[in-house]
Amino acid sequence: MKIAVLPGDGIGPEIVSEAVKVLGALDVKFEMEAAPVGGAAYEAAGHPLPEATLKLAQGADAILFGAVGDWKYDTLERALRPEQAILGLRKALGLFANFRPAICYEQLVGASSLKPELVAGLDILIIRELTGDIYFGQPRGRRTAADGHFPGAEEAFDTMRYARPEIERIARVAFEAARKRGKKVTSVDKANVLETFQFWKDVVTEVHKDYPDVELQHMYVDNAAMQLVKAPKAFDVIVTGNMFGDILSDEASMLTGSIGMLPSASLNDRKQGLYEPSHGSAPDIAGKGVANPLATILSAAMMLRFSLNQPEAAGRIEAAVQKVLAQGLRTPDIWSEGTTRVGTAQMGDAVVNAL
Amino acid sequence: MKIAVLPGDGIGPEIVSEAVKVLGALDVKFEMEAAPVGGAAYEAAGHPLPEATLKLAQGADAILFGAVGDWKYDTLERALRPEQAILGLRKALGLFANFRPAICYEQLVGASSLKPELVAGLDILIIRELTGDIYFGQPRGRRTAADGHFPGAEEAFDTMRYARPEIERIARVAFEAARKRGKKVTSVDKANVLETFQFWKDVVTEVHKDYPDVELQHMYVDNAAMQLVKAPKAFDVIVTGNMFGDILSDEASMLTGSIGMLPSASLNDRKQGLYEPSHGSAPDIAGKGVANPLATILSAAMMLRFSLNQPEAAGRIEAAVQKVLAQGLRTPDIWSEGTTRVGTAQMGDAVVNAL
Ligand SMILES: CC(C)[C@H](C(=O)O)[C@@H](O)C(=O)O
Ligand SMILES: CC(C)[C@H](C(=O)O)[C@@H](O)C(=O)O
Repeated sequence: MKIAVLPGDGIGPEIVSEAVKVLGALDVKFEMEAAPVGGAAYEAAGHPLPEATLKLAQGADAILFGAVGDWKYDTLERALRPEQAILGLRKALGLFANFRPAICYEQLVGASSLKPELVAGLDILIIRELTGDIYFGQPRGRRTAADGHFPGAEEAFDTMRYARPEIERIARVAFEAARKRGKKVTSVDKANVLETFQFWKDVVTEVHKDYPDVELQHMYVDNAAMQLVKAPKAFDVIVTGNMFGDILSDEASMLTGSIGMLPSASLNDRKQGLYEPSHGSAPDIAGKGVANPLATILSAAMMLRFSLNQPEAAGRIEAAVQKVLAQGLRTPDIWSEGTTRVGTAQMGDAVVNAL
Repeated sequence: MKIAVLPGDGIGPEIVSEAVKVLGALDVKFEMEAAPVGGAAYEAAGHPLPEATLKLAQGADAILFGAVGDWKYDTLERALRPEQAILGLRKALGLFANFRPAICYEQLVGASSLKPELVAGLDILIIRELTGDIYFGQPRGRRTAADGHFPGAEEAFDTMRYARPEIERIARVAFEAARKRGKKVTSVDKANVLETFQFWKDVVTEVHKDYPDVELQHMYVDNAAMQLVKAPKAFDVIVTGNMFGDILSDEASMLTGSIGMLPSASLNDRKQGLYEPSHGSAPDIAGKGVANPLATILSAAMMLRFSLNQPEAAGRIEAAVQKVLAQGLRTPDIWSEGTTRVGTAQMGDAVVNAL
């Protein structure tokens, strides 16, 4: 089993090395190989996703990814900016199914912006389509407007699009996932305005016929953004497109107040996957040894379960994380009165000890 | 001064008649004329926006709008569904500038999902572009995919687009509005992925040169969805496109916990405007006399200020609403222990008495 380790920028290297430490402490053998990605790769090789890094990722069973991005690359042309690496990996590996759990840990309820009774016990799973939609749709660019409100003016444009098989496969992923949980899927669309999402709604409804044991609800994206704030626990699995999923999964993760705890997985149809924390590269705290490594450690657990067929090892890591929380250990982002403040490496060590 | 009164569906008629009552109690003369819109118009005339209703709206200085929509029209073909009326009015009248304040009233802080300290004193203004973007961009439809992941498959598509003058004018609206408030504009985009929103960011940055006294911040839409939950009071004016604005303005209004209090205005370049509550038609409580009319009454105040040049009368209505809240009167949606529960008409009467 081969893992490509791509630490990236900002706090990426620090948090990834704690996850590697935890993986190394398991009684499972992996081959791990590291490569630069994002800004670090641009510095080293002139491109955020160098050929060698891409090759390594393509040849691995799974990718353990830190984070990319830093303000200092803001002035680069778009194709060279760090986030192009993540878009490039998604596209090249066909990682169409993004799993973003939003879980509120019992001990961290107080960290949420929301009132405790609204988030205690929160456990929702957002499944975001990740290789289609307006993220990759062609044509796109700048031109002179031929029609519209200002014909003759300079304009920019993008194309939103979904083909039937793209919607079918992500809908199946969502219904299968719901079967193993609360048996309810909320499909988020904007069918009242967009042709793409009327089609989305129609196809999801058709696929649902194969999953009569799962409840299907349709919701407009604006309403979903509201209901997440009002009553997040009413959701079980949310499935939506790439653009709406980007917005709603970030909103949902912030509801928990502890985004530093939330992992993510992006899978293709061969169960090859990219695993990364839900949070970003946080360049402001990079190198200070204070970043929370738990989201990355929990991403490694998802990797064991989804791509490496080691559900038992995954469960051990998750139990160890629960244990260190119960011990009262907290990195600064989740620290509160009465708990013990620890740094990145101490937290990683504590998870290893708890294994 | 002529006002077109379009009550619409669900609770629309009840709440609009309270606003009309309040307008009638002012010492200002208006000509008011009512017409059906939405589902009510479909029932009466076979179309959600009949020619006569559109004519009336076009000939008026302002439109007082209730709400449209009901589950029972869900099976109609899209062109006949109630929400097409609102899209049609925006387009026909060129109502490109949507103002959506998200204010947390002192007495209603407890109604929010968020912790009181995060929302007490909240006062943000979302300015949403309302006639462009993927809402109206052509081409759109269904076809056989020529390329993409599944060439040959059935697909649906839409076009996101913005022309330079569309971005310039909404940016000016936002900077002008910020000048009268906290002097800070957050422009929300997805420039890291979309050509349209890289252009948006570029043009907003150019327009900003004319407003050196206003601070400009750029933020990605996924981050904005998070920051609204984490620290909403850090915003002053948010300006964004039609699609992102739809999502973020609803998220922001729900943060306050009292969406039944929030008005909105949609203006064109002749200051003609459509005024409506931020909430929907709530068919489940229609006809029960329990709907909160305050968002509609406050929309009438916005109408007096923005379209009818009666800022003093607007201020009187707003002060009267503050007064009834201070008196402890509450419709069921904002009721809490220790306050007095009233119905729709009682609330309207109380505002009239407080004028
Ligand atoms: C960095 C950016 C391109 C990316 C996205 O929009 O998909 C990020 O926000 C994410 O959600 O992984
Ligand atoms: C009804 C719908 C078309 C509309 C929109 O998406 O603009 C509504 O959600 C709104 O925000 O006014």
